[in-house]
Amino acid sequence: MRLYTRTGDKGKTSIIGGRVEKDDIRVEAYGTVDEVNCFVGQAVTQLDPSIFQDVLEDLEKIQHELFDCGGDLANVKKSRELKLTKDSIEYLEKKIDELIVEAPELERFILPGGAPAAASIHIARTVTRRAERLVVSLLKADPEVSETALHFLNRLSDYFFALARVINYRLNLKDVEYVRSGRVFREGKRKGEK
Amino acid sequence: MRLYTRTGDKGKTSIIGGRVEKDDIRVEAYGTVDEVNCFVGQAVTQLDPSIFQDVLEDLEKIQHELFDCGGDLANVKKSRELKLTKDSIEYLEKKIDELIVEAPELERFILPGGAPAAASIHIARTVTRRAERLVVSLLKADPEVSETALHFLNRLSDYFFALARVINYRLNLKDVEYVRSGRVFREGKRKGEK
Amino acid sequence: MRLYTRTGDKGKTSIIGGRVEKDDIRVEAYGTVDEVNCFVGQAVTQLDPSIFQDVLEDLEKIQHELFDCGGDLANVKKSRELKLTKDSIEYLEKKIDELIVEAPELERFILPGGAPAAASIHIARTVTRRAERLVVSLLKADPEVSETALHFLNRLSDYFFALARVINYRLNLKDVEYVRSGRVFREGKRKGEK
Ligand code: B12
Ligand code: B12
Ligand code: B12
Ligand SMILES: C[C@H]1O[C@@H](n2cnc3c(N)ncnc32)[C@H](O)[C@@H]1O
Ligand SMILES: C[C@H]1O[C@@H](n2cnc3c(N)ncnc32)[C@H](O)[C@@H]1O
Ligand SMILES: C[C@H]1O[C@@H](n2cnc3c(N)ncnc32)[C@H](O)[C@@H]1O
Ligand SMILES: [Mg+2]
Ligand SMILES: [Mg+2]
Ligand SMILES: [Mg+2]
Repeated sequence: MRLYTRTGDKGKTSIIGGRVEKDDIRVEAYGTVDEVNCFVGQAVTQLDPSIFQDVLEDLEKIQHELFDCGGDLANVKKSRELKLTKDSIEYLEKKIDELIVEAPELERFILPGGAPAAASIHIARTVTRRAERLVVSLLKADPEVSETALHFLNRLSDYFFALARVINYRLNLKDVEYVRSGRVFREGKRKGEK
Repeated sequence: MRLYTRTGDKGKTSIIGGRVEKDDIRVEAYGTVDEVNCFVGQAVTQLDPSIFQDVLEDLEKIQHELFDCGGDLANVKKSRELKLTKDSIEYLEKKIDELIVEAPELERFILPGGAPAAASIHIARTVTRRAERLVVSLLKADPEVSETALHFLNRLSDYFFALARVINYRLNLKDVEYVRSGRVFREGKRKGEK
Repeated sequence: MRLYTRTGDKGKTSIIGGRVEKDDIRVEAYGTVDEVNCFVGQAVTQLDPSIFQDVLEDLEKIQHELFDCGGDLANVKKSRELKLTKDSIEYLEKKIDELIVEAPELERFILPGGAPAAASIHIARTVTRRAERLVVSLLKADPEVSETALHFLNRLSDYFFALARVINYRLNLKDVEYVRSGRVFREGKRKGEK
């Protein structure tokens, strides 16, 4: 296989159905989704399968979906058939609700950290939020970009938050609350709920 | 608790005292401060309390202060009472001076790495500098933003540099000097000193 | 030594031969090269010298070259003598070809991860690509910037990809293929080849 092609040496690169500058906001966006994927890969190496089999299965599913997401963002063909669907979002929402119930109640911000895998998932959380911000910018430049990608990344960072807490909980590690936090986490209706 | 609220699905989000686009430079800045916090969380998992009790205490203090810092950046209320004060900066300066004395003299750049915790702290150092650059941009957009936040991040990256060296020193690991480095670290007056 | 100088507290900073705003694209670029260097440093801590002596030597060489690269990007003197030369790129290309042969054939994208060091190298890969994008932007602002830096970062990310695969291969870990991947990796001529 010929990994390096030297075709990108002038600062341009190919996407699915076109060619753009390497510093195009689109490349920035799916490049950051790739970065997220790597931190998930790091967390996976730190999770004991005998305690986290369910989590490991979900993280692998998510790694595939991050590729779906990146592929959709890289696609500018006339008829873009999306790889990432609303099912992935609904799955994440279901999982978030389950994880939230498993970990102890929370009212205040917590310091990111705890177990090594929890620390990695917190990193993935913030890199996901960086990716989300870039997709918001990309959507302004090209309104045809998949909104599903945006919603997926948004839920994913909440999933990572809930997951980091459960990792620490299963390992008997107490999250440290931010001392000067207000009571920021509250019950309340969700948009789309009655 | 209802973690996900779906209120951010159109690309806007709430800050303290307002509502902005998710790719606003302000959100970028405190989102990156959150990212710094996560790498500190990672380093904490790698430090042996029997050797680094003092460091662990300082890192926890810093994690709380990174929340203070992020909160101040997220705050656009008319009367912004700052959470982060000059005391935090003076504390960092004192600690830097102590750490510099503990580690061996240095004249040249060193390769980031060594012990796992030192590697993580070097990562935190560069992410902190990324956050600092974003706060510089934010200050141009909104001159009312806390300069203390900027100074805090600046000192923090120097603190992390000094700390990474001490971590390696206490663990008997020699930092590798960059072979083609000039003699870049020099004595000299500080601004504000006589 | 006086690590902190307080000279950067107004948002400006010194480069080699000048002074710029801290959020200048140039500072962004070499600051990100520094970030890459830190993730290489992290990977180094995770590689067993008895299996990866050759790799460790290459990674140390690369850490020095990342400093050369950063230094060239930070240099705006009239006569810029470059530290990073084409030799470094040719060396990377040779190494990529060797690593590609050592790891099993590949046709589809793989999930980033595997061994801890492979996960770290995948992270370094994506951060390197972030640095590459910034150098593309910098080159637009200042066409006198070293193209060698750009080509180096481009090859480096391919080197990291090939290396991550070899790390997993030597440790008997199978890379997981992205399930919905097309056959993306293909043979074919390289630019500049007959
Ligand atoms: C998007 C993209 C990425 C995204 C990944 C995708 C994502 N979903 O997020 C990201 C940014 C992560 C990425 C990363 C990398 N990429 Co990339 N990437 C691409 C790109 C632009 C599109 C690939 C793609 O998904 N195509 C869509 C698929 C569905 O189309 P397809 O493969 O053509 O398949 C269609 C048909 O061909 C057909 N088909 C496919 N297989 C078969 C088989 C048969 C028998 C038949 C009949 C039909 C058929 O069906 C498919 C559906 O329409 C290509 C360049 C290009 N324009 O193709 C490079 C490319 C594949 N990448 C490349 C490289 C080198 C990499 C990296 C190694 C770079 C790096 N250093 O990090 C990494 C590897 C990542 C990994 N973990 O494996 C190179 C590969 C060079 C080579 N030797 O082949 C390419 C060709 C770009 C280039 N010219 O340099 N990449
Ligand atoms: C800034 C902010 C952040 C910053 C954190 C702060 C920082 N300092 O850097 C960052 C970016 C890190 C962040 C991260 C997250 N955040 Co946030 N964040 C906010 C935001 C905008 C402000 C929170 C804040 O600090 N308010 C300032 C405090 C001081 O005000 P306050 O809580 O209202 O408290 C005042 C009064 O209410 C009163 N008070 C407080 N408690 C009490 C109690 C009593 C009894 C009384 C009388 C009065 C009182 O006194 C306080 C002082 O004035 C809110 C949204 C909003 N506008 O409120 C979301 C919000 C709290 N975040 C939210 C979420 C989901 C998160 C994340 C999980 C997102 C993610 N996936 O990563 C993470 C969690 C991080 C963690 N480690 O815990 C959600 C929580 C949803 C819910 N179910 O409750 C909110 C509500 C946003 C939303 N609508 O989605 N966040
Ligand atoms: C570029 C740069 C960086 C780059 C590094 C380089 C790269 N190649 O990527 C990056 C961004 C990584 C960096 C990081 C840091 N840097 Co820096 N960096 C600089 C900068 C702008 C240039 C340094 C340089 O490479 N100069 C080029 C060399 C070749 O020139 P030179 O040292 O002057 O050497 C020439 C001559 O003096 C002569 N020479 C050199 N030695 C000798 C010896 C003798 C005997 C003789 C006769 C001649 C001679 O020959 C050389 C060739 O021309 C300087 C500020 C400045 N303008 O000098 C700060 C500077 C060196 N950095 C500084 C700091 C604090 C740091 C960090 C700790 C910041 C942080 N918190 O992360 C880190 C440390 C990183 C590490 N791993 O060691 C401070 C040091 C303060 C001090 N107390 O001395 C400086 C002075 C900036 C400042 N004012 O705050 N930095
Ligand atoms: C929890 C808080 O984080 C902020 N917020 C919302 N989305 C992002 C993002 N992608 N990146 C960083 N911060 C974000 C908002 O201010 C929200 O209220
Ligand atoms: C050590 C050198 O790093 C550069 N520098 C100063 N501040 C930052 C930052 N936030 N990010 C990256 N580089 C920075 C300057 O060029 C300084 O001289
Ligand atoms: C493999 C694919 O990755 C994209 N690509 C090329 N260079 C970069 C970069 N620096 N960052 C992110 N993505 C990049 C192109 O679309 C290429 O085809
Ligand atoms: Mg390429
Ligand atoms: Mg939300
Ligand atoms: Mg300084």
